[in-house]
Amino acid sequence: MSRPGEFELIARYFAPIAGPAGLGLTDDAGLLRPARGYELVVTADALVAGVHFFADDPPASIARKALAVNLSDLAAKGARPDGFVLTLALPKGWTEAWLADFAKGLAAMAEEGACPLVGGDTVSTPGPLTLSITAFGSVPAGRMVLRSGAKPGDLVLVSGTIGDGALGLKVHGPDKPDWVVKLSEAGRSHLADRYLHPRPRLALAAALQAHASAAMDISDGLVGDLAKLLAASGVGAEIDLDTVPLSDAARTAIMAAPALAELAWTGGDDYEILLTTSEGEYPAMVAAAEAAGISLARIGRVTSDSGVARFLEQGRERVFAQGSFAHF
Amino acid sequence: MSRPGEFELIARYFAPIAGPAGLGLTDDAGLLRPARGYELVVTADALVAGVHFFADDPPASIARKALAVNLSDLAAKGARPDGFVLTLALPKGWTEAWLADFAKGLAAMAEEGACPLVGGDTVSTPGPLTLSITAFGSVPAGRMVLRSGAKPGDLVLVSGTIGDGALGLKVHGPDKPDWVVKLSEAGRSHLADRYLHPRPRLALAAALQAHASAAMDISDGLVGDLAKLLAASGVGAEIDLDTVPLSDAARTAIMAAPALAELAWTGGDDYEILLTTSEGEYPAMVAAAEAAGISLARIGRVTSDSGVARFLEQGRERVFAQGSFAHF
Repeated sequence: MSRPGEFELIARYFAPIAGPAGLGLTDDAGLLRPARGYELVVTADALVAGVHFFADDPPASIARKALAVNLSDLAAKGARPDGFVLTLALPKGWTEAWLADFAKGLAAMAEEGACPLVGGDTVSTPGPLTLSITAFGSVPAGRMVLRSGAKPGDLVLVSGTIGDGALGLKVHGPDKPDWVVKLSEAGRSHLADRYLHPRPRLALAAALQAHASAAMDISDGLVGDLAKLLAASGVGAEIDLDTVPLSDAARTAIMAAPALAELAWTGGDDYEILLTTSEGEYPAMVAAAEAAGISLARIGRVTSDSGVARFLEQGRERVFAQGSFAHF
Repeated sequence: MSRPGEFELIARYFAPIAGPAGLGLTDDAGLLRPARGYELVVTADALVAGVHFFADDPPASIARKALAVNLSDLAAKGARPDGFVLTLALPKGWTEAWLADFAKGLAAMAEEGACPLVGGDTVSTPGPLTLSITAFGSVPAGRMVLRSGAKPGDLVLVSGTIGDGALGLKVHGPDKPDWVVKLSEAGRSHLADRYLHPRPRLALAAALQAHASAAMDISDGLVGDLAKLLAASGVGAEIDLDTVPLSDAARTAIMAAPALAELAWTGGDDYEILLTTSEGEYPAMVAAAEAAGISLARIGRVTSDSGVARFLEQGRERVFAQGSFAHF
C-alpha cells in the first residue's frame, strides 16, 4: 500500500479547497487582503480524537465540524469569513480513502461558509489524530461584537434550540442510555446530526453587528457560556429556563428522563448564538434574524448584579452545580 | 497536586504575552488591524513531541522554537510580524512548572519578534504534546516575497551558516555519534544551540522585500528546499557546494567524519534564508543584509534548465539521493 507524500497530498486534496489567497498552497505562506476600513477577526480551535470527537466518526464529519466550530466563533463576532489555516497531525495507519473523505467534508464546509483554505501544515503523530484550525473573518473597523458589551436592562437571546448537541452526543456515542430507545428514528437522527454537523450561524453575523450589545457562540453549554459573557461585561442576568427553546426531539428526551434538562442547559456542542440586545434594538434584531431564516428566543434580562446569573424554572430558583462543560 | 483550570491558566501564563489585539484573551477571538495598503501574510506549523522535538527538551526551548520557525517563514516572505495564535494539546501529567517555563520561552520569543499572542486554544490529549502556531505578518500590498520569482541569471544566496541544525540534532539527541567527542565543548554547545534555538532572520525581511527576486526559509535542508524554490519558479540552478558557508563547529565535525557534509547540505532545521537576487540588486542586497548584521553567501546561479539543480563539489558534480528531510 503506497501513500502519497506530503506535497502530492496537498496538491490532490487540499489545493482544490484553497482560494487565490492560498497561492495554490505552493508557497510558505498564504496572503489575506482585508478590505479598506475592515479589521480581521482571528479565532482558533484544536480538536483531538477521543477527546472532541470519536476516532471512528466519518472523516467528512470530523472535518466539517472542525471548520464549523471556528466559523461559529466568527459568526458570533459579527464577522464575514475570509479564510482558514489547517494543521493536521495524522496518526499511524491513516489511509488515502480516509483523507479523501476528510477533504470532501472540509471542502463542503469551506464552500458553504465561503471560507477558503489559505495554508497549513501536515505532520505525522504517534498519538491520536489532532487538528487545529485558525479562521479569519472581517468586520468594519471597531465593529467586532464583543462579549463585554452587555448592559443592565438588555434582553438575553439565543438562536435556534439548546441542548441538541449534548443530547446528540449521547445518542451518537457507544453507550446508548435507556431514553434513547424512547425517541423516534427521526428524533435520534436529528440529535445525532446536531452533534456531528453543527451549522454555524453565519447568516446572523450582519444582524449581530448591527443590533447586538454582546454575543458569543454557545460551545461549552448555555449556563457556563452565559457566565463568561456576564463576567466579561461585569453584569448579571435573570434567565427563565422555561423559555429556553428546545427541539421536539430534545423535549421528548427530557419527558422520558427529566434529569436531561440539566444536560441540555449545561452540556456542550450547541453552536448557537447567545446574545444581548437593548430593548430598543430588540425588534430590529429579531426581524433581521427572521429575514436570515433564524429564530431567536428571548430567555431573560441582564441585571446590574455583577457576575450573578439567577435561573428560574416554573417560578422557582434553580442552582447549577457545574456550570460549564470543559474539554480541558 | 492541584492544577489550574483553563481560564486560570490563560490568565496566569498566556494573557501577559497577548498584546492589545488579543483583548486580554478574554473574548472568543483576537483582532488584527493591518495598516492601510498592507496585506497579511499567514503561515502555520504544527510540532509534535517525539517527531519534531524531544519530549524532555526544556519547555522554554520547545516554545521558543515553535514560534521561531513561524517567524522564520514570515521573515523569508519579507513580512513584519503582527501576532500569532497558539493551540496547545497538553499530554496527561503536565505540571504547572512545565507550563510556566513554556510560557517564559514563548514570551521571550514573542518579545524578540515583536509578535504578540492574539488568541488560541488549550486542550488535553491522550497522546504526545502537540503545538500548532499560526503567525501573521504584514507586507505592503503586492510585496510578499514569493518562491516563484527566481529568473535565469539571478544569483543564489544563503544567510548565515548551513548544516548546524542537522548536526546539532545529533549532538543534542540521545545517541551521540563518535564524531561528537572530537568537538570542543564550545563547538558542541554551538551546534546544539543552533538546533534547539533557531534565530529567525527577521532583520532581513525589509532587504528581501526590496532586493530579492524569490526567497524561502531553509527548514527541510538546503538541497530539498532549493528544489522547491526552483520548481515554483520554473528554473534550474548551478550550486557550488564549496561556497556553502559552514560554522567552525560544522567544519570540524565534517573534517572528523566527511560523510557529514551530506547531512549538512540536506538535513533540516537551518532556519536560514535561501534567496535569489538579480546581478543588479546583488550589491544592495548584501549591503542591506550587512547593515542588519547578517552575512550572505553567494552559492550559485539560477539557470533556465527548469527544475534541474546541478551541484559541484571541488569541480565535480555531486548527486543527492534524497533531497529533503521530511517530517511527514
